[in-house]
Amino acid sequence: MNQREIELSGHIIDSLILPKTLDIIMDKGGDFKILEFDIGKKKSDVSRAKIIVSADSPSLLNQILDELSEIGASISEIKEVKIVASPKDKVAPDNFYSTTNHVTHVLYKGVWLLVDEIEMDCMIVVDEKNNKASCKAIGKIKKGELIVVGREGIRVTPPERPRGKQGVFEFMNSDVSSEKPLMNIIKNIASEIKEIKSNGGKIAIVGGPAIVHTGSADLLARMIKEGFIDIIFAGNALATHDIENALYGTSLGVCIKTGEVVSRGHTHHMRAINTINNAGSIEKAVEIGILKKGIMYECVKNNVPYILAGSIRDDGPLPDVITDVIEAQEAMRVYAQEVDMVIMIATMLHSIATGNILPSRVKSICVDINPATVTKLSDRGSAQVVSVVTDIGAFLPTLYSELEK
Amino acid sequence: MNQREIELSGHIIDSLILPKTLDIIMDKGGDFKILEFDIGKKKSDVSRAKIIVSADSPSLLNQILDELSEIGASISEIKEVKIVASPKDKVAPDNFYSTTNHVTHVLYKGVWLLVDEIEMDCMIVVDEKNNKASCKAIGKIKKGELIVVGREGIRVTPPERPRGKQGVFEFMNSDVSSEKPLMNIIKNIASEIKEIKSNGGKIAIVGGPAIVHTGSADLLARMIKEGFIDIIFAGNALATHDIENALYGTSLGVCIKTGEVVSRGHTHHMRAINTINNAGSIEKAVEIGILKKGIMYECVKNNVPYILAGSIRDDGPLPDVITDVIEAQEAMRVYAQEVDMVIMIATMLHSIATGNILPSRVKSICVDINPATVTKLSDRGSAQVVSVVTDIGAFLPTLYSELEK
Amino acid sequence: MNQREIELSGHIIDSLILPKTLDIIMDKGGDFKILEFDIGKKKSDVSRAKIIVSADSPSLLNQILDELSEIGASISEIKEVKIVASPKDKVAPDNFYSTTNHVTHVLYKGVWLLVDEIEMDCMIVVDEKNNKASCKAIGKIKKGELIVVGREGIRVTPPERPRGKQGVFEFMNSDVSSEKPLMNIIKNIASEIKEIKSNGGKIAIVGGPAIVHTGSADLLARMIKEGFIDIIFAGNALATHDIENALYGTSLGVCIKTGEVVSRGHTHHMRAINTINNAGSIEKAVEIGILKKGIMYECVKNNVPYILAGSIRDDGPLPDVITDVIEAQEAMRVYAQEVDMVIMIATMLHSIATGNILPSRVKSICVDINPATVTKLSDRGSAQVVSVVTDIGAFLPTLYSELEK
Amino acid sequence: MNQREIELSGHIIDSLILPKTLDIIMDKGGDFKILEFDIGKKKSDVSRAKIIVSADSPSLLNQILDELSEIGASISEIKEVKIVASPKDKVAPDNFYSTTNHVTHVLYKGVWLLVDEIEMDCMIVVDEKNNKASCKAIGKIKKGELIVVGREGIRVTPPERPRGKQGVFEFMNSDVSSEKPLMNIIKNIASEIKEIKSNGGKIAIVGGPAIVHTGSADLLARMIKEGFIDIIFAGNALATHDIENALYGTSLGVCIKTGEVVSRGHTHHMRAINTINNAGSIEKAVEIGILKKGIMYECVKNNVPYILAGSIRDDGPLPDVITDVIEAQEAMRVYAQEVDMVIMIATMLHSIATGNILPSRVKSICVDINPATVTKLSDRGSAQVVSVVTDIGAFLPTLYSELEK
Repeated sequence: MNQREIELSGHIIDSLILPKTLDIIMDKGGDFKILEFDIGKKKSDVSRAKIIVSADSPSLLNQILDELSEIGASISEIKEVKIVASPKDKVAPDNFYSTTNHVTHVLYKGVWLLVDEIEMDCMIVVDEKNNKASCKAIGKIKKGELIVVGREGIRVTPPERPRGKQGVFEFMNSDVSSEKPLMNIIKNIASEIKEIKSNGGKIAIVGGPAIVHTGSADLLARMIKEGFIDIIFAGNALATHDIENALYGTSLGVCIKTGEVVSRGHTHHMRAINTINNAGSIEKAVEIGILKKGIMYECVKNNVPYILAGSIRDDGPLPDVITDVIEAQEAMRVYAQEVDMVIMIATMLHSIATGNILPSRVKSICVDINPATVTKLSDRGSAQVVSVVTDIGAFLPTLYSELEK
Repeated sequence: MNQREIELSGHIIDSLILPKTLDIIMDKGGDFKILEFDIGKKKSDVSRAKIIVSADSPSLLNQILDELSEIGASISEIKEVKIVASPKDKVAPDNFYSTTNHVTHVLYKGVWLLVDEIEMDCMIVVDEKNNKASCKAIGKIKKGELIVVGREGIRVTPPERPRGKQGVFEFMNSDVSSEKPLMNIIKNIASEIKEIKSNGGKIAIVGGPAIVHTGSADLLARMIKEGFIDIIFAGNALATHDIENALYGTSLGVCIKTGEVVSRGHTHHMRAINTINNAGSIEKAVEIGILKKGIMYECVKNNVPYILAGSIRDDGPLPDVITDVIEAQEAMRVYAQEVDMVIMIATMLHSIATGNILPSRVKSICVDINPATVTKLSDRGSAQVVSVVTDIGAFLPTLYSELEK
Repeated sequence: MNQREIELSGHIIDSLILPKTLDIIMDKGGDFKILEFDIGKKKSDVSRAKIIVSADSPSLLNQILDELSEIGASISEIKEVKIVASPKDKVAPDNFYSTTNHVTHVLYKGVWLLVDEIEMDCMIVVDEKNNKASCKAIGKIKKGELIVVGREGIRVTPPERPRGKQGVFEFMNSDVSSEKPLMNIIKNIASEIKEIKSNGGKIAIVGGPAIVHTGSADLLARMIKEGFIDIIFAGNALATHDIENALYGTSLGVCIKTGEVVSRGHTHHMRAINTINNAGSIEKAVEIGILKKGIMYECVKNNVPYILAGSIRDDGPLPDVITDVIEAQEAMRVYAQEVDMVIMIATMLHSIATGNILPSRVKSICVDINPATVTKLSDRGSAQVVSVVTDIGAFLPTLYSELEK
Repeated sequence: MNQREIELSGHIIDSLILPKTLDIIMDKGGDFKILEFDIGKKKSDVSRAKIIVSADSPSLLNQILDELSEIGASISEIKEVKIVASPKDKVAPDNFYSTTNHVTHVLYKGVWLLVDEIEMDCMIVVDEKNNKASCKAIGKIKKGELIVVGREGIRVTPPERPRGKQGVFEFMNSDVSSEKPLMNIIKNIASEIKEIKSNGGKIAIVGGPAIVHTGSADLLARMIKEGFIDIIFAGNALATHDIENALYGTSLGVCIKTGEVVSRGHTHHMRAINTINNAGSIEKAVEIGILKKGIMYECVKNNVPYILAGSIRDDGPLPDVITDVIEAQEAMRVYAQEVDMVIMIATMLHSIATGNILPSRVKSICVDINPATVTKLSDRGSAQVVSVVTDIGAFLPTLYSELEK
């Protein structure tokens, strides 16, 4: 009797939950019988279905239920979530539940607790005293913490596919082609940004040094000054080349104004780092008047926080760089739960890093000239990210001029 | 005694002719002795060198001399060019000389004749009566025509590397990186265009349908209207989608203004072709007032010729398309010798086709989001082409606004 | 009363027909009421649904019905197909129906006629005398032929998503990532090829010159010799470089064995063309013993037909090349309806050309190092093509060794 | 009198030192007079030149001399190297000399000291007591250390372009095209590896997780076991997915054998990390018999050291990962000076990181399916790196089978 009843409810047809459910069952080699199916007669109505899933073996049934639980199906005969104490720091019990980046609840002591600070590839820790559940990265698990295991009592709610034309996220599909009317896409992103800001929302930029190389640092600086950006996630390279540009007018030794390679220009980024090292930090360099413009300058002047995460390829790095990557992740996590929109520009490394810790509800755009960057983001679980395959040197000027309209 | 004396003259050091000469000799396994070397003492001076090249076998020596002749070295003891009659239509004698795209002379009856209409991968035909030499594609060779064979009596003059900053072609190197300050590169291209036009020069556009898909058809149309463009080389796809855009506001069924997929939009290009088929030609469609805007419209209105070359992937095609590719090549050749600048936009097929028939003296720019397009152009002999790796949807708007300044 | 009843039947849930139907209705701004819904209780059962679609205006309703008809929904109150005579050669009546590449029927005189030789972007011509319907490209339409217009009486049947693991086409999704276990993908393709051949099926290769450049011509030649390939679609470049390789051991002047650039090697392809021109054709060159190996040689020896379609970038071309692209398309069409599998290798041009004329039922694989090639194929309607992003220089050796196992 | 005499010696023509010298002078707007020029008459002879460089201003002259010193020209009137004490930890004096990755000497107390542990973008520290000079990254500079400033007394020796065919590094040029005969390139790399190993040399692999995703982990493991590899530079991802593969047969949840997505497979990498966290380290997991195969297993068993550098996108990470990137760089530096060959596979991040600390004398190959990776490496100063644009899933199987021959 390897069978179990599951329930689906919501816009289960047009959000593809029903078809995906049947897909999974059949692809895995299981079988199903639809017991009840109450389809909404109109588009505002909710549909409900009860389905018996069966399989040849208990383990196959479990596999199928595992998959189904991730797309939002819930097991009818609801059991409480199962928790087991961690045997050691940084170690979860066997069979731990690994999170998605979707809204998640666990049924604990008869109540569906919302899991706080959800992000993918983490564990769910239940706080017995306070009746709370939260998401924790494996590296932060402490011995004795109560970790959710198995699949019972967990409810995942993927974002519903929005209807109608509410913004860039609806009209763009996930295609990674560059053969799209770019100007209009950017117009939509600009109006999305304005709407979020007018509602008091927060916007993060995740940026790579190509922003500076392609001559767009000035425009990002202006966007910061004008209040469009609330937080920057980047690395040593963006900050260093931005400061190189502010001090010498070059990036990687290439003059931003003329595009020419400047004599000894390839040493400029080291001189920029030396200058900031001497001042003590980016902030102090702004204070004492050495750093007078650019992205980092505007961040300091406008109290826009920046997390500069270290990477193995860093020269220097600048004193503001968090060289321990786990510390840097923690610093990013604080903001990742707060933001409403993330614009990832020309950095596969930091985009994937940000995608890793971002709830799926956050609107995310990835802009890169290389279609592979977007493909990789989505292979690694950040399926909600909308892609714009274009040249950074063109994207920011156009976006800025749309924002100014 | 497998040796031969060669002569180099000109800016042989800074144009890399001397180093390349020694390179070739040594790479091929030959040997050399420098007999005379008269180096220019100042940068305006010309240098001269006489070098004895030797090799183990006559065939190796010939190989080396073959290579040297293409980079501009000339064999000291000058012999007349050797000519042999073609045995058959479309067939050259064995050992025919295959041309480069550089300025070429042949020594015939004691006179260095300039080879007319030079292009790469062709034969040199000598007209005995009129003491003329010209370049001919293999398909045009007629039985009995006198074809240059071997390597004697041929002088190739590659373009000298220009000094100082005279335009985009000097400051851009052949790097295919997208990490360049784009705005400035486009500024330079714009000023180059203006200079050529102010000197009465001619500019060709080689364009792919992505110009329309990315929403830039209107800008190219304006450039034509304002007299910046003298000839268009394209295919059925550019013209069809331009007309689709003019008639329906879509390209490949995607609305250019909003970026949305339009209902049944994917049939629009077929309806556009049907409309032009019904009118009889693009020109007639303009005359009778059906086609009222766009790239093709402005070409007709402003007497800018267009060569639409057929391709195996064509739908339709439009009645104006030359479906025989060899006829289409001939039509392009007429203009290829006249133009001063070629801007190749988002079409590997037509860019390579144009590169094939273009003398190396013509300034050429290839704009594509895919670095491989430029690499291929250069692999196929069009080494003089300068590349801009960027998004077409951004390139044309920026170029146009620079041209308007 | 802008409403209409439609019917869906088949595996409408797991083949996504029902969800897509509701999607289209809602995305277009229409409304729906589900009248009947008879869901199959088990996976082998067929489901049926009757839905009333409504919209604010007749034109919106028509738009929605247009879209629905393409995914397989049929209008309940079935009317006969509407036909209008073509007013002129190469011109279809207004509102002509433009085909998809899926199996299509039209209801004519009370009978559902299968549309012969279906391919995308064509017209349906009804032959009154013989009660037949067939697909015709616009360029072949003759004045007076009866062309299907509007949307009534047309039934499109997209391929059903197969269940279970029956071959490479089922386990590969349409992702264009290169981060896949390549060896296994190729193993699956090899077994698919073997199965098709053991069932007497036909396999086409669509190939670009990179097959030769990367050193794989010999392997493709062996596949032809051993009977795996039934037809080749290619261009002048593949044939020329294959013959260059057979005659000189080089491709584009690069020695295939050592990878070194050969002295004067860049003239070899012109010498190869000259040799074939002299012989008269590839076949004659094989006959008289000049051409002794390679892809084209094996085609001649093993009576594998080849269609060499001309392109604007051709040198020469070889006498066997069909320089008129429309003639070349016609030559390809003959085979496109017969083949069971198409393997497209390293040629965007010929792959799109083949995709254009291929019924969606033909199993198609596109192998290219550039993910954009696959994206473009699918943007242009060939959604059924499965992609393998890999290096050609590796694909064919591995495929061949799997075929030999 | 803004002029200065410089000297060139060696194979200054065919190694392009003379032409580059004249290029730089003229491009910068300076002038020159060649005083002496003693050209080697035969290819084994060394040439010498004395040139007076002049410029309009002392600063322009200095700029020119700066550039010249980097390509190997030395100022005739040799002065001692100038040293200034560092004012602060991590801070170099103004005008510090920033190193290249070429062999470098400084003239100190009349002796040309070889700068130890040369790498690019570092400072030269002179140890007065021991008459030693060494290279130091800015982050390691201590207050009071004597740092080389300016340009006097520094001699840079770029690698000479090798003659003849000695291996893969000679016959491959820096082209990033994928249209190359791949099999032969790999054959050459294999014989280079064998030669280095037979001479007792050391080989490093710099690898990304695509090695595992594409199914090649087993082959790299065998190469380690068979003694071809001496050190691995990688990140958490390579190790995690290798262990995931060893424990579950999947990589990123995709079954390596079949290419199918495995149920809940996307949690496998977290379970792999948890398993190693529980064991304490990779080494302990091998010891207690949990980890029984794969890349990391063979490293442990065969005492091949591995440096796993942390990155901001890491899940976990594994306990063996050095999460502080500066510590990780230091760990890599130890080996970077020892190795004779580096093979960088499918990781832009770690390849650039390795390129940063590698002397230019080390033979380096970068294998990636994306040509941009190689372009970036070379933009960032690692011009000596030879590129192979191919699919990793094909490269390692072919390389391994060549190594076995």
